[in-house]
Amino acid sequence: MIKSPTQTFDASAELLGKALGTNDVAGVSRVLAPLDLTETLEQLERLSTIDRALAYRTLPKDRAMEVFERLDAALQADLVSGLQEADVAEVFAQLSPDDRVALLDELPASVANRLISGLNEKDRALTSTVLGYPQRAVGRYMSPEFVNTHPHLSVGETFARVRRELDDAESVYTIPVTDAGRHLVGVVSLRDVLRADESELIADIMKTPLSVPAVQDAEEAARYCADAKVLVLPIVDAEDRLVGILTVDDALRILEDAESEDAARSGGTEPLRRPYLATPVGSLVRARVVWLLVLAVGATLTVQVIGAFEATLEQQVVLSLFIPLLIGTGGNTGNQAATTITRALALGDVRPNDVFKVLAREVRVGAFLGLLLGALGFTIASLAFTVPIGLVIGLTLLGVCTMAASIGGLMPLLGKAVRADPAVFSNPFISTFVDATGLVIYFLIATSILGL
Amino acid sequence: MIKSPTQTFDASAELLGKALGTNDVAGVSRVLAPLDLTETLEQLERLSTIDRALAYRTLPKDRAMEVFERLDAALQADLVSGLQEADVAEVFAQLSPDDRVALLDELPASVANRLISGLNEKDRALTSTVLGYPQRAVGRYMSPEFVNTHPHLSVGETFARVRRELDDAESVYTIPVTDAGRHLVGVVSLRDVLRADESELIADIMKTPLSVPAVQDAEEAARYCADAKVLVLPIVDAEDRLVGILTVDDALRILEDAESEDAARSGGTEPLRRPYLATPVGSLVRARVVWLLVLAVGATLTVQVIGAFEATLEQQVVLSLFIPLLIGTGGNTGNQAATTITRALALGDVRPNDVFKVLAREVRVGAFLGLLLGALGFTIASLAFTVPIGLVIGLTLLGVCTMAASIGGLMPLLGKAVRADPAVFSNPFISTFVDATGLVIYFLIATSILGL
Repeated sequence: MIKSPTQTFDASAELLGKALGTNDVAGVSRVLAPLDLTETLEQLERLSTIDRALAYRTLPKDRAMEVFERLDAALQADLVSGLQEADVAEVFAQLSPDDRVALLDELPASVANRLISGLNEKDRALTSTVLGYPQRAVGRYMSPEFVNTHPHLSVGETFARVRRELDDAESVYTIPVTDAGRHLVGVVSLRDVLRADESELIADIMKTPLSVPAVQDAEEAARYCADAKVLVLPIVDAEDRLVGILTVDDALRILEDAESEDAARSGGTEPLRRPYLATPVGSLVRARVVWLLVLAVGATLTVQVIGAFEATLEQQVVLSLFIPLLIGTGGNTGNQAATTITRALALGDVRPNDVFKVLAREVRVGAFLGLLLGALGFTIASLAFTVPIGLVIGLTLLGVCTMAASIGGLMPLLGKAVRADPAVFSNPFISTFVDATGLVIYFLIATSILGL
Repeated sequence: MIKSPTQTFDASAELLGKALGTNDVAGVSRVLAPLDLTETLEQLERLSTIDRALAYRTLPKDRAMEVFERLDAALQADLVSGLQEADVAEVFAQLSPDDRVALLDELPASVANRLISGLNEKDRALTSTVLGYPQRAVGRYMSPEFVNTHPHLSVGETFARVRRELDDAESVYTIPVTDAGRHLVGVVSLRDVLRADESELIADIMKTPLSVPAVQDAEEAARYCADAKVLVLPIVDAEDRLVGILTVDDALRILEDAESEDAARSGGTEPLRRPYLATPVGSLVRARVVWLLVLAVGATLTVQVIGAFEATLEQQVVLSLFIPLLIGTGGNTGNQAATTITRALALGDVRPNDVFKVLAREVRVGAFLGLLLGALGFTIASLAFTVPIGLVIGLTLLGVCTMAASIGGLMPLLGKAVRADPAVFSNPFISTFVDATGLVIYFLIATSILGL
């Protein structure tokens, strides 16, 4: 992606498309052969399911394995149906336990069961450990293969353990320390082990461990790993026994997926789970239609509010001119507040208990913004129309901004309190409630000032 | 954050607030003393600038240093003005070069220069290296302190080098390999070094290196580091000479900041750069007011469009009832498309050259959504009002959805093409253009069907 300039990437993409279009297997292989792993992945992620399976089968065996390991689980599952059963079993056995579980979640139960039963005993046991945790728990993403040490072992003995486990352990750079009952009692970095004298005891150089329970929400655990700046976060069970490790690259993957989800939800769509160009148009429609319908149904409330003031509008059609501007400004103000609070919640900067602090701030921010916009609106509308109209617009902007910022700031907190996704929860409320309330404010101010 | 239940956190926060309110220094110290580093940071990040400086000064020296290192640069800069000059110089000298540069960017030039001149020669040189790169380049975030090796050295010699540099190097787990001219020629992991025989040559075990140029955009480099799943990404100059390393925790910090920026911009606010509760109300207003004004000024276009059709509205006031619903649906459809494409661009799933692919997909998605919503709108409006009104609503929804999805999908690409932030670029266009165009579509369909 970075080493190859865009032109080369686009040229390869075009050649690949042509070769696939004419079922030219040799041509596909020729395009993919000179690409490195990342480039190969990026090309494959742009193809339709069928083209991707075709291109994948042209890869040399080693590269195919690397590519498979790095694809998202949804794309892996797409590939599985196009491969020979024996090939699938082989690829499956080589995945790490957490990746294996992610793939299993995407497959039909019958295929999943067949794959699990094809594993050797050790791999089956490791896989079941990970499979045993609930869907969004960090236990699902952890690696049950790690190297650990004990307080009474020496640095030299620990180093020997590390050397023995070099091939199997997911990471050897942070080594959890456990007691005889497998309880996590400390952590040593490989750096500290290298620095210390061979005869020193681990008990003397180990540090207080950070850890999270395996049932903890994966996104929270990943954010914790990132904030604590650790390469490896030990995962423990309810009795504080070490059950696995979360590595920083798994944390990154979890956070990236979470960000994609937040971004999608804040824009009112379901997350796609596949790269955009690899998503069929039907899936794009499905990802968007529910939200669009919910919001449209919510918007019928505005039809009713305006309907209730139809007589007012008949007397002063000019009032309808400002409807989009006023409710648009309300929506924007509400969105600003909701976006800010949603992000602050995700980062842990704001907690559900801070509701009154947030409200106090957002009322002030909204009123301030409303004063500025209201003064401007009053001036412009007074000049372009009449002073009473200007007064209506100015006061409405003040009221709408204050109301919208408050509602926009509160909704994510309320969403979090009822354990809903703050972004999802906020969206329809702001669109519906703020629009309808804004219209009521507008027409009430208009009728009283214009004496209608 | 995870080990301590929320109640304890909130209780500490309350006690801290009370102690600060009464200037009870001993009380502040008592609240902070039992907290671990992460908890201390989270408490400090919720305070106002003055309270934070007061609380910070009660920390024991070692903890104070750890806390300072982990604070965002903006908060570090806030603290600096409240500390003794000697303390600042000491803290500054202990920061890593990249963190030092991030802080310098936040300080007034006179303070920055004084701090730089107080450094020892080596630290000054390292700092200047990093300072020499442009603001958003990855060179600004890299660490110029690393351990490297050479192809002709043995594994044993390399291991000895690693042991010597344990205290200084930012990471010892991935070791870049350079030739006599400092050109990056390979990379070995510490794991590979430990696995190999002492007498083996690095040339025989090293792998092809991934790397990015120091002038590369930091977000792109960080995303590359994350996608490639490497702990350390070598950074090179224009001649492919190794100049530094980007560690995965720096990459995480860059990506987290970028996500905060994207989230803020997509909600129409400037990023805050400080935790929400630590941001003064005035700064919140400033972060939002510009966008709100831009969008409000853009929305005056809708006033003009409706004004142009005022005669139509006077004949059929009922048409005004649907204005919020129709433009709201257009805005939502446009936002959905823009959000999806903005995220796909950020992840590299879509490239600026894919403009026709995106357009072809979004036209279909929009038309599909428009058909569904239009059919529904026709049915409901026909029943609630009249069939001609239903026809107007249904056809408008079809037109608006198709137009909005296309515009929403194209805008981020256009933004990227002119090197603007895709989210920032899309927002006003969708709000303004889609709203105004939607109204034109509505009134044209209405006048022709209702024969006005």
